[in-house]
Amino acid sequence: MSDLDATTPDATTPDTMTPDATTFDAMTSDAAALDAADELRAKRAAFALDDLAEGAYLDGNSLGALPRAVAGRLADVVEREWGRLRIRSWDESGWWTAPERVGDRIGRLVGAAPGQVVVGDSTSVNVFKAVVAAVRMAGEERDEILVDEATFPTDGYIAESAARLTGRTLRPVAAGDLPAALGPRTAVALVNHVDYRTGRLHDLPGTTAAAHAAGALVVWDLCHSAGALPVGLDAHGVDLAVGCTYKYLNGGPGSPAYLYVRRELQDRFDSPLPGWNSHADPFAMAPAYAPAEGAARGRVGTPDILSLLALEAALDVWDDVRVETVRAKSLALTDFFLRRVEEYVPKGRLECLTPTPHGERGSQVSLRCPDAGEVMAELVRRGVVGDFRRPDVLRFGFTPLYTSFADAERAARVLADVLAEVPGP
Amino acid sequence: MSDLDATTPDATTPDTMTPDATTFDAMTSDAAALDAADELRAKRAAFALDDLAEGAYLDGNSLGALPRAVAGRLADVVEREWGRLRIRSWDESGWWTAPERVGDRIGRLVGAAPGQVVVGDSTSVNVFKAVVAAVRMAGEERDEILVDEATFPTDGYIAESAARLTGRTLRPVAAGDLPAALGPRTAVALVNHVDYRTGRLHDLPGTTAAAHAAGALVVWDLCHSAGALPVGLDAHGVDLAVGCTYKYLNGGPGSPAYLYVRRELQDRFDSPLPGWNSHADPFAMAPAYAPAEGAARGRVGTPDILSLLALEAALDVWDDVRVETVRAKSLALTDFFLRRVEEYVPKGRLECLTPTPHGERGSQVSLRCPDAGEVMAELVRRGVVGDFRRPDVLRFGFTPLYTSFADAERAARVLADVLAEVPGP
Repeated sequence: MSDLDATTPDATTPDTMTPDATTFDAMTSDAAALDAADELRAKRAAFALDDLAEGAYLDGNSLGALPRAVAGRLADVVEREWGRLRIRSWDESGWWTAPERVGDRIGRLVGAAPGQVVVGDSTSVNVFKAVVAAVRMAGEERDEILVDEATFPTDGYIAESAARLTGRTLRPVAAGDLPAALGPRTAVALVNHVDYRTGRLHDLPGTTAAAHAAGALVVWDLCHSAGALPVGLDAHGVDLAVGCTYKYLNGGPGSPAYLYVRRELQDRFDSPLPGWNSHADPFAMAPAYAPAEGAARGRVGTPDILSLLALEAALDVWDDVRVETVRAKSLALTDFFLRRVEEYVPKGRLECLTPTPHGERGSQVSLRCPDAGEVMAELVRRGVVGDFRRPDVLRFGFTPLYTSFADAERAARVLADVLAEVPGP
Repeated sequence: MSDLDATTPDATTPDTMTPDATTFDAMTSDAAALDAADELRAKRAAFALDDLAEGAYLDGNSLGALPRAVAGRLADVVEREWGRLRIRSWDESGWWTAPERVGDRIGRLVGAAPGQVVVGDSTSVNVFKAVVAAVRMAGEERDEILVDEATFPTDGYIAESAARLTGRTLRPVAAGDLPAALGPRTAVALVNHVDYRTGRLHDLPGTTAAAHAAGALVVWDLCHSAGALPVGLDAHGVDLAVGCTYKYLNGGPGSPAYLYVRRELQDRFDSPLPGWNSHADPFAMAPAYAPAEGAARGRVGTPDILSLLALEAALDVWDDVRVETVRAKSLALTDFFLRRVEEYVPKGRLECLTPTPHGERGSQVSLRCPDAGEVMAELVRRGVVGDFRRPDVLRFGFTPLYTSFADAERAARVLADVLAEVPGP
């Protein structure tokens, strides 16, 4: 299997995400032993996964599994808060302040102190707010927006629209080349922290520092990193960030996204979507707009309460978890899976798109084969759920809160079986 | 009570919303008799209102009551569709197509044939899409955006942002003066169908025709009319419309809003928020944007499924209801309430802001008194829930699907009691 050499992690690559308490021996090959040593193993019971004794859900990087706490909480929101308290719940049940309250809980997971993250709208809409606001902060003389050329498409489409509406030019650049591409014309760079297709982890500290050295801003898209690895927004001086909550944060299908605006920039955050919820005094119903202070400035319309409070319940599972612990398990899981795949799958049948060095890897493994669509369909039929990205990529996401080494073992075995049976191209 | 002469509806005002099957005798003064004759009376049981035997919920124009069907449906969405089918539900449970499917159901209630309404995002975000797209359709030479000067504030804030980003000028005009204000410079007028503060119903057919005669477009905000009265989007040739779903449509707190784009304009709808969900082939993950055909072009990011499917369940109650029947009851309810208030409240204590003629009235009654904040607080303590809009307005919303004449009777009596006890200014 060419390019799949995960058994020999590159010890020379500095791992900025070094786990602080790994209990995983990289050479241990027994899934049961690894699961027994996993300090997160009890977390699996917090998720609805009972039907998966034989299969493996490795698509949490697309839709996280259901945290058991959600159903009961949502029933209470519907039946008591909406059904009986009705309009009073905007105050009495804390609905009005939920975007900032839930934002702070996400903030803890991405290294943001309270008061800088607000939840609401979709990732796409938040990309729009962040990019337009960044362009305005950067000033008139900076006429270029850079975008990670392999970006999840919506970021590119929205950045193009932001460029068109603000009279800037959009220039796609490989994420690794951004430090060299940043210059006096750059207003802002929009970059994915982890590439959705390959699982490559981009250099957030280095790229952010390079942007600042060039006098530019950076917007990070955290969709594929939040909840899977430490982000360190405050520590690395990130300007703005956005992310979804339905992948590693398990908020539910299409749950609301979030926006981070660094505290020092909040007074200059000039939103292109100044809805009444971001007004300094929303219930004054004033004809003239005056922006709120703080994270609330990133709000737009009335928050979507059912989804927002489902997300809040989903976040309970994180209360006693450190992201560093999650990261350690994530790397151990992907190491283990890659090693197993190498053992079970004949060489040349798959190409690994996911980087081997820990410092360059997110929490998914992407394997390329020409018949990937057919292979994934058969995997799903056998209960091993990853996903397929056209034209030829198999994606397997590893959610450390609930994915076990036994899942990874089964998935590798079933993958090998399927590859042996599907004739190939 | 000055200005409160609802007992003598202006017979000379043409009522474009004439009910087709009113069973309400305007002179009948007995609430029980009116409730007995109400062909919608059985609908109340579809809502969670058991606790309201003594009070009255007259704030459905802010947050509609809970339809009983929602809790069970949402539990199934959470536990089975998300919890067990997980990622497969995007296809197998119809999640992906929900924005258009639910859109068509709303379309029926606002007079739009299928394929023109899409659900998602907030009203504010949809105002932004609609106004920017309208400006682009109108062409470069039209440099002015008109906005209803008494608009719900978010529309004005967002229109101002749209003007700024497209290099247009925003000009506030009284809704009634719009026909005269429209001209060769007008790109688009953004108007509320029903004024949120006064309950005044604006002239949608006339204003739309005037805009078209001037070569301009109109965006209607239907937040306070959809589900309360016939709108007739197709019949009146409306260009674009937006609305929320948590008032008379009872979709739940902050439930997703909708966007209507008339079929003939869809090919020219050039969204400022071109997210991956509005791409012609979303799963191609293509770097270049190519817009989808039809209503899906109004989508942006991943739809918020929990809220969207709660809304879908909430709409079931409409399946056997004609909006004309709702309108007839709405007018009868507001007539009855106004008559009762006039009987019970001493003259001069209240001023009625809501127009008397049926053709100019939505489904709420707004009464002004200097101590409105204190009066509403006391009303709520006594179980009569309306709301207060600064500085001096009491709002009472009448949702014909569940508001009874007995509610209106109780509310008027309690209001009179409170006004007699609160000392006044």
